[in-house]
Amino acid sequence: MDPVNHLDVLKEKVLNANLALPKLGLVKLTWGNVSLCDRENNRVIIKPSGVDYAVMTAQDMVVVDLSTGEVLEGVKKPSSDLQTHLHLYRTFSKINSVIHTHSKFATIWAQSEKDLPALGTTHADYFLGNIPCTRRMTEIEVKTDYELNTGKVISEMLIEKNIDPIEMQAVLVAAHGPFVWGESCEKAVENALVLEEIAEMAIYSKMLTPTLGGMDEYLLHKHYFRKHGQFSYYGQN
Amino acid sequence: MDPVNHLDVLKEKVLNANLALPKLGLVKLTWGNVSLCDRENNRVIIKPSGVDYAVMTAQDMVVVDLSTGEVLEGVKKPSSDLQTHLHLYRTFSKINSVIHTHSKFATIWAQSEKDLPALGTTHADYFLGNIPCTRRMTEIEVKTDYELNTGKVISEMLIEKNIDPIEMQAVLVAAHGPFVWGESCEKAVENALVLEEIAEMAIYSKMLTPTLGGMDEYLLHKHYFRKHGQFSYYGQN
Amino acid sequence: MDPVNHLDVLKEKVLNANLALPKLGLVKLTWGNVSLCDRENNRVIIKPSGVDYAVMTAQDMVVVDLSTGEVLEGVKKPSSDLQTHLHLYRTFSKINSVIHTHSKFATIWAQSEKDLPALGTTHADYFLGNIPCTRRMTEIEVKTDYELNTGKVISEMLIEKNIDPIEMQAVLVAAHGPFVWGESCEKAVENALVLEEIAEMAIYSKMLTPTLGGMDEYLLHKHYFRKHGQFSYYGQN
Amino acid sequence: MDPVNHLDVLKEKVLNANLALPKLGLVKLTWGNVSLCDRENNRVIIKPSGVDYAVMTAQDMVVVDLSTGEVLEGVKKPSSDLQTHLHLYRTFSKINSVIHTHSKFATIWAQSEKDLPALGTTHADYFLGNIPCTRRMTEIEVKTDYELNTGKVISEMLIEKNIDPIEMQAVLVAAHGPFVWGESCEKAVENALVLEEIAEMAIYSKMLTPTLGGMDEYLLHKHYFRKHGQFSYYGQN
Repeated sequence: MDPVNHLDVLKEKVLNANLALPKLGLVKLTWGNVSLCDRENNRVIIKPSGVDYAVMTAQDMVVVDLSTGEVLEGVKKPSSDLQTHLHLYRTFSKINSVIHTHSKFATIWAQSEKDLPALGTTHADYFLGNIPCTRRMTEIEVKTDYELNTGKVISEMLIEKNIDPIEMQAVLVAAHGPFVWGESCEKAVENALVLEEIAEMAIYSKMLTPTLGGMDEYLLHKHYFRKHGQFSYYGQN
Repeated sequence: MDPVNHLDVLKEKVLNANLALPKLGLVKLTWGNVSLCDRENNRVIIKPSGVDYAVMTAQDMVVVDLSTGEVLEGVKKPSSDLQTHLHLYRTFSKINSVIHTHSKFATIWAQSEKDLPALGTTHADYFLGNIPCTRRMTEIEVKTDYELNTGKVISEMLIEKNIDPIEMQAVLVAAHGPFVWGESCEKAVENALVLEEIAEMAIYSKMLTPTLGGMDEYLLHKHYFRKHGQFSYYGQN
Repeated sequence: MDPVNHLDVLKEKVLNANLALPKLGLVKLTWGNVSLCDRENNRVIIKPSGVDYAVMTAQDMVVVDLSTGEVLEGVKKPSSDLQTHLHLYRTFSKINSVIHTHSKFATIWAQSEKDLPALGTTHADYFLGNIPCTRRMTEIEVKTDYELNTGKVISEMLIEKNIDPIEMQAVLVAAHGPFVWGESCEKAVENALVLEEIAEMAIYSKMLTPTLGGMDEYLLHKHYFRKHGQFSYYGQN
Repeated sequence: MDPVNHLDVLKEKVLNANLALPKLGLVKLTWGNVSLCDRENNRVIIKPSGVDYAVMTAQDMVVVDLSTGEVLEGVKKPSSDLQTHLHLYRTFSKINSVIHTHSKFATIWAQSEKDLPALGTTHADYFLGNIPCTRRMTEIEVKTDYELNTGKVISEMLIEKNIDPIEMQAVLVAAHGPFVWGESCEKAVENALVLEEIAEMAIYSKMLTPTLGGMDEYLLHKHYFRKHGQFSYYGQN
């Protein structure tokens, strides 16, 4: 496919992923954004800022240069979180789609500034360990290049804790909300949905049993690798 | 537009805002009311009292004189909370639409007689600080001119705490529920929706981490002013 | 209207009230029942036992004699809770419709064996005080005439506590669930809905503020009598 | 009916039961599976692994030999939990349909590693006692024959605690989720639904009253046997 037609396909994918979020109950009003990284052509397709989902079209998607952040195509302003997305794509080369939401229960964990603990197989089927919450950002980081620094506080944490962004496709930004990603838009949306579900279950589990530790690591590994990697045997592939 | 046709447009707006509340899950039965202040013509358009949303029409909206509270147009009785609305319009000249609901989670905070703390950016995107809860009303205030005094206990609190009603477009009335407002009906409905969402998230955040303080003030300011005021850069404007 | 045609109208009312319960989220599967007392003709119309709501018709409603409990009309067995309904109608002459559900949050209060406290005006608009929970039933009461004794434990409590069943149209039966009533099927359904809403709000209010007492009695009275009795001024009547 | 046509009927039943789970809110994505045991023909019909519910057909159901686990019919891989289902059918001869879900509140109890206590009649109408939660599985059990061992940890618990799988048609697997069963697919789905409802009610009941014990055993028995066994009198049979 030539790059231009290919771009239309990608815009459609980004639109559909954005529209999936309110349908799945993960986004209210305009509080979410999905982007897709077209690495071959060094560009990112992202939702426009603050546009009503009811009227948003594929042609509203904004195309920006991955390296410079310059708008390549589109008449609307890109999502205000653009720089966070770009930083994640630049830092982690295997991430192809990034999603930010304020989905309720994931955001509650972010507001509580706690890692979301792996408490059961529902979590283990998707994320290999606790979902980490970043430190608070400093006043300087917030006042200057806030969105870029949001990306940096995420990458800093993953690198410091030696977390592989393929095995852990979600993080919580303190006092803010979740960022998730995936190899494709569809996978990133699925991760956003699962994150919300396990975030809700973990809150009630901790309320019911405040002293609850985590699940056994061998069970975590069993479930994660039952569905991921070369020895996976879940599904039809 | 001449004032008469203009009034039909306003009634339609007030009807639609009232109908939006049950659709958004913010009102059950008839437990809510929206009004609009037409300052140019010194009048207020408000929902009738206790009328089923399923049969309510624009012509059921009641028009009252802002200064006197006298009914200018309409055969139905205005909302029993009319005097609260009028007091808020008289006291705060920049408020153009007032909404009262018993939306679940905002009401829970009101019943708990606690300010709703700003715990994250979802809150900060809309409200510049904790959403204040009034003191309890006295027996005298309840027994005489209850609805007017409900307005007074709100304005007293905002003035005493030096809170700008533009930067804080919501309050909680102790043991009762939320009042929100906005520059338009549409904005007031949006505020009612956001208040409910952050009220729910704050309850769970406090249950998960009872010692949780508030978010950093610089982050609160960053998010609020990213969306409001002359230096805002969120959205397409 | 002659008694026979009148009966058809009543059956239709009872059917519709029963169907309203799952639509309002108050009943799952077949866990609810509504009856209506036709005092003029000394008979009660009640839902059949364990019939799927999807196929239930007005002609499935069972008509029983108020005094004897004998089935007067209908080929199906009446609700297994029939004797509870009959006892309430016989004991309290102003109750014309009784509803039993296992609606989630009201049932949680019943399971917790606690009175549902009046914490705000949403509650006060409908119920004049805390919604009382019965004592546990004894082994004898459960093993013999269980359903009749369920009615007796309710009436015993109301009489002992000197509670007027018109001002308090709901009770909780310990370890079981709510019974509500009203002057009509429609009012009883409304009470069931409001009970569920305030039950949910009260749970979260108590979780947020475990030391929370009740609302001021003068505010409770103000809101209740704003909507009920000869000095009411809410609504269009 | 000859065995072949009969098999088509059974596949349809298994499909419908699987489709019922997401409709009832018990399953998200592909996180559930229903099977049916055709004891007369010594075979089990089970959902394929990881197939989207939106495109799943009756012909996708996989037929396996009850004794050997060998696939008898079907081009898709059976659910990864097949061995758990087979073990339960082999161990308990009266179970004819098994369901596994990650339904939210039942899973929360499983994650909390607590028996779900019988707190009220809603529970007692379906399950004769607390719903037991298994011990954690050992590293060996997880690493080798995990799914078979999941079945074994369930049967071990039921046998050790002398629990009749007819009177207790649900268990929780620690850090995983619920398994339920029934005499038919339809009954198993109903049990899965009821389990989820009582799991939610029990969580809030315990949060409201942490010291809450269980319901009286005579009330538990009364309600259970009002609906089950030879002296039942609920419903139309």
